[in-house]
Amino acid sequence: MVATSVVEAGPLLAAWAQRTKPSELQRMLALASGPGILSLALGLPAPELFPVAEIEQAASSVLENETRALQYGPPLQSLKGHIVELMSQRGVECRESQVFLTTGAQQGLNILSRLLLDPGAQMLTEELSYPGFRQAIEPYQPEVLTVPTDLETGMDVDEVEWLLTNGAKPAFIYVVTEGHNPLAVSLSREKRQRLVRLARDFRVPLVEDDPYGLLEYEGKMEPPLRAHAADWVFYVGSFSKILAPALRVGWIIAPESLMPTLSIIKEASDIDTSTFGQRIVSAFIDAGHLRAHVEKLRAEYRSRRDSMLRALNEHFPAQARWRRPSSGVFTWVDLPKGLDVSELLRLSIEEERVAFIPSDAFALGINSQTHGIRLNFSHRSPAVIEEGIARIARILKETLRAGF
Amino acid sequence: MVATSVVEAGPLLAAWAQRTKPSELQRMLALASGPGILSLALGLPAPELFPVAEIEQAASSVLENETRALQYGPPLQSLKGHIVELMSQRGVECRESQVFLTTGAQQGLNILSRLLLDPGAQMLTEELSYPGFRQAIEPYQPEVLTVPTDLETGMDVDEVEWLLTNGAKPAFIYVVTEGHNPLAVSLSREKRQRLVRLARDFRVPLVEDDPYGLLEYEGKMEPPLRAHAADWVFYVGSFSKILAPALRVGWIIAPESLMPTLSIIKEASDIDTSTFGQRIVSAFIDAGHLRAHVEKLRAEYRSRRDSMLRALNEHFPAQARWRRPSSGVFTWVDLPKGLDVSELLRLSIEEERVAFIPSDAFALGINSQTHGIRLNFSHRSPAVIEEGIARIARILKETLRAGF
Repeated sequence: MVATSVVEAGPLLAAWAQRTKPSELQRMLALASGPGILSLALGLPAPELFPVAEIEQAASSVLENETRALQYGPPLQSLKGHIVELMSQRGVECRESQVFLTTGAQQGLNILSRLLLDPGAQMLTEELSYPGFRQAIEPYQPEVLTVPTDLETGMDVDEVEWLLTNGAKPAFIYVVTEGHNPLAVSLSREKRQRLVRLARDFRVPLVEDDPYGLLEYEGKMEPPLRAHAADWVFYVGSFSKILAPALRVGWIIAPESLMPTLSIIKEASDIDTSTFGQRIVSAFIDAGHLRAHVEKLRAEYRSRRDSMLRALNEHFPAQARWRRPSSGVFTWVDLPKGLDVSELLRLSIEEERVAFIPSDAFALGINSQTHGIRLNFSHRSPAVIEEGIARIARILKETLRAGF
Repeated sequence: MVATSVVEAGPLLAAWAQRTKPSELQRMLALASGPGILSLALGLPAPELFPVAEIEQAASSVLENETRALQYGPPLQSLKGHIVELMSQRGVECRESQVFLTTGAQQGLNILSRLLLDPGAQMLTEELSYPGFRQAIEPYQPEVLTVPTDLETGMDVDEVEWLLTNGAKPAFIYVVTEGHNPLAVSLSREKRQRLVRLARDFRVPLVEDDPYGLLEYEGKMEPPLRAHAADWVFYVGSFSKILAPALRVGWIIAPESLMPTLSIIKEASDIDTSTFGQRIVSAFIDAGHLRAHVEKLRAEYRSRRDSMLRALNEHFPAQARWRRPSSGVFTWVDLPKGLDVSELLRLSIEEERVAFIPSDAFALGINSQTHGIRLNFSHRSPAVIEEGIARIARILKETLRAGF
């Protein structure tokens, strides 16, 4: 048969694109954001907490006073200065010349993958990991080495050391140190120090993804890896979770000498990070709003987390286990190994109109030791969270009663 | 020597990143945007023509009325509708379900390269071509086949046919049909039809890059390739040149069935196109401002083009040749073969503080038949353009007198 269009002539697409088909899980997750579904699935900020008036003020002032606000332009120096200050609140000392602006943290991961990964190279991460990261490295079809994650202390650094000692040569190690996605754990101080030592000893760069780093609820935030090693850590940050995703502004902290190469990748990706978005963020911080806003988010998200934990205590069966996350926007619930968590999602959507994300969506190709569901507590109000947990609990109890 | 950081341990970067060094030309182009340089180098819109008040109004109305304006979100349906209408002004019939939103046209090229290119595959374009496109395909290290460009009628389609007939199997053909960058030519109607026929006959998709398509000055704009073939053309458009680059909104017109795959690539790139930017553009068009604004740009840029042509006539020597561009933002000046155009730029910056882009910057790896300089007429006022041309003319005449 002669193909009469690009679509019918499927083989005209790149090989990976021919293989790509949305999975059953992806189909369900699309349903999860449909109308009438109470979703605790996505890691969205609370829309009612966006500082709309202050952002509107910042946008107007930028448009009225800065002639270059709508033009292409180089990265804004004042914003880099603000990021240096923000990083110092995270315990990181860096310079403006080490700040590279990106269209959100996802682009940061994308750019660093391009910088570090040769096609087919090895890279190392955790068994359950942020799917957006997997998407970012996919073009290079790397050999992905994985280690388990301890739900109290984070990434299994013994296993990292074992792999490195036994000949693994990853192009880099990817790690979320605070508010782990999906496991909600904070990497212990001792493991942070060991990981940095391993990076130095084995000459393996670390990519530290820290979108939730400033959302900390116990007043004992650990400094990120970047605080322990300026020379081996690429740090990725973002204003999406602490201000607003729609401004699309994130950053990488990287060695100054790599800025020209990062610029080449950035220009190839999307020319520049919106100069309007950059200026709005900078004006918002200039006006002194960011610190108070982050405090407000911390207080509110802490209270939502506590509502979720109370509801879990009240409604969830004894076979489910969870911990109190000290940072981020997720709670992780461990479930018995044999329980089909994707089927649990299907039933939850169909019978109770409630959604979450099952561990299958985070597994990097292999069977993880850890098995359960991710629940978001930042997006919805405490009352809605409680209702959602009660609904999931009903399905979960039914499934357990049926002996899954 | 033991490397003590990522930087010293150069080999830790991807192979291409180790090879990458800014060229002398790139160093000069960085100088060209420095203070005190009268630059006709970049393809920037005129900042004084940005509809600042209308954009401010749109931004405020969006923030006051749309609770989701600062959140992550799916592509905005109303904006897709506006793009369908805009495409119909370009003579293209398409549906909202065929519109895919991007963070500017550069990301469109990036996403399509990922969709269509396997590593090491062939692709086909012109000898002188948009460098941002070259950057977008570079990760896949394709074998780039090139054809010359006729300065009256555009891409050499005979040569395209010859290559295809003789076994070339490009993953796609890249072409700028209006306001060619850098050659300022509009592809003739006859060549458009032949190119589409070749695409069908040889089953090779066309990627049509059309950021300047609506900036047309002679009232005889040809419909783009997409108007001739919905089924073999991926069309890339943008609001950067007709509204404002800082909103970072562009689009791809593609077959509906490819939308899920495009969404995967987009999400991996930067999650979503700024919902704030999307809503500002949509509100601006809702308010009826776009049509009048594009008319204003056409009138103003036409007049700037004419100022540039007058200045060229008055100041440039007989050995230089140029044509009147009917669309876009550039004039191309052909210069004698032996003349070193990068050296001409160096002298122009040093002695006359004026800048342009020499053909070397656009050449895809091989020696092009076409040799000269690209001059932008959209960014600066007529008086500045005339001054710039006079300055370049002095250096050019000196160089020619010296027998280059």
